Amino acid sequence: MKENKVLYLDDLYVGQEFRSEQHQIDAQQIMDFARQFDPQPFHTDEVAAQSTFFQGLAASGWHTAAITMKLQVRSMNLGRGTIGVECNVKWTRPVRPGDTLYAVSKVVQIVPSCSKPDRAIVTIECSTLNQHDDVCQFLVSKVLVLRRPQ
Amino acid sequence: MKENKVLYLDDLYVGQEFRSEQHQIDAQQIMDFARQFDPQPFHTDEVAAQSTFFQGLAASGWHTAAITMKLQVRSMNLGRGTIGVECNVKWTRPVRPGDTLYAVSKVVQIVPSCSKPDRAIVTIECSTLNQHDDVCQFLVSKVLVLRRPQ
Repeated sequence: MKENKVLYLDDLYVGQEFRSEQHQIDAQQIMDFARQFDPQPFHTDEVAAQSTFFQGLAASGWHTAAITMKLQVRSMNLGRGTIGVECNVKWTRPVRPGDTLYAVSKVVQIVPSCSKPDRAIVTIECSTLNQHDDVCQFLVSKVLVLRRPQ
Repeated sequence: MKENKVLYLDDLYVGQEFRSEQHQIDAQQIMDFARQFDPQPFHTDEVAAQSTFFQGLAASGWHTAAITMKLQVRSMNLGRGTIGVECNVKWTRPVRPGDTLYAVSKVVQIVPSCSKPDRAIVTIECSTLNQHDDVCQFLVSKVLVLRRPQ
């Protein structure tokens, strides 16, 4: 995996975009995650999933969110961390075994703290797309980002 | 684990509450999740975490969200599944090794589909609390819930 340049609050600007590496998901990953965290037949059992709402195995939305976090952390590479405060997630399309996901993150707002000059709340919009460039998840997150250490 | 009664849309009402079983989290779980999905020192390395914003190991917010999903799925036990459409998550307090989490879910709105009478969008507020009854995560989710099969 390519290591991206370490960034701090000082390096971010509104409109900046980061495209991540890819993550290929398979049935085993989907079932392993779901058995631990989202034990529902459409996530844990390929056969039982056929007769559910999803008509086949689909990843837990929380699994897609977790993979997106990995892709985002690696592509943005914030030196003092990506510290999530709040987020809004929409799951717009099922993630299926064999899908190859990537994330595109965009800085849309930077609000410096009034009381603590070393930090700001940064709003990031992040689309998680599959190999057909269909958006599977749309995430808007507010994260605490810190300046470069003095 | 106690199996709760299987519920359908027909059984839900505004104001209904569900209290989950407990989940005790430890350093190994925190690091295992984070190495896979949120590889940042405050989640993956007990020593390095000391000199970070969190001043010690803390669970990834996505890990807390995933554990909450498990607790919610088991305590609500919706017969045709909890199908997340959208949610808002706030992380209000770090989750630490040794914390014992539980979730309290409350039905706050039920909007039947106009075009598909077998379903509704149900809004659920869910607090994830630790052993001191401090709220660590507050989640508002819109989920698709289906009626009892005819």
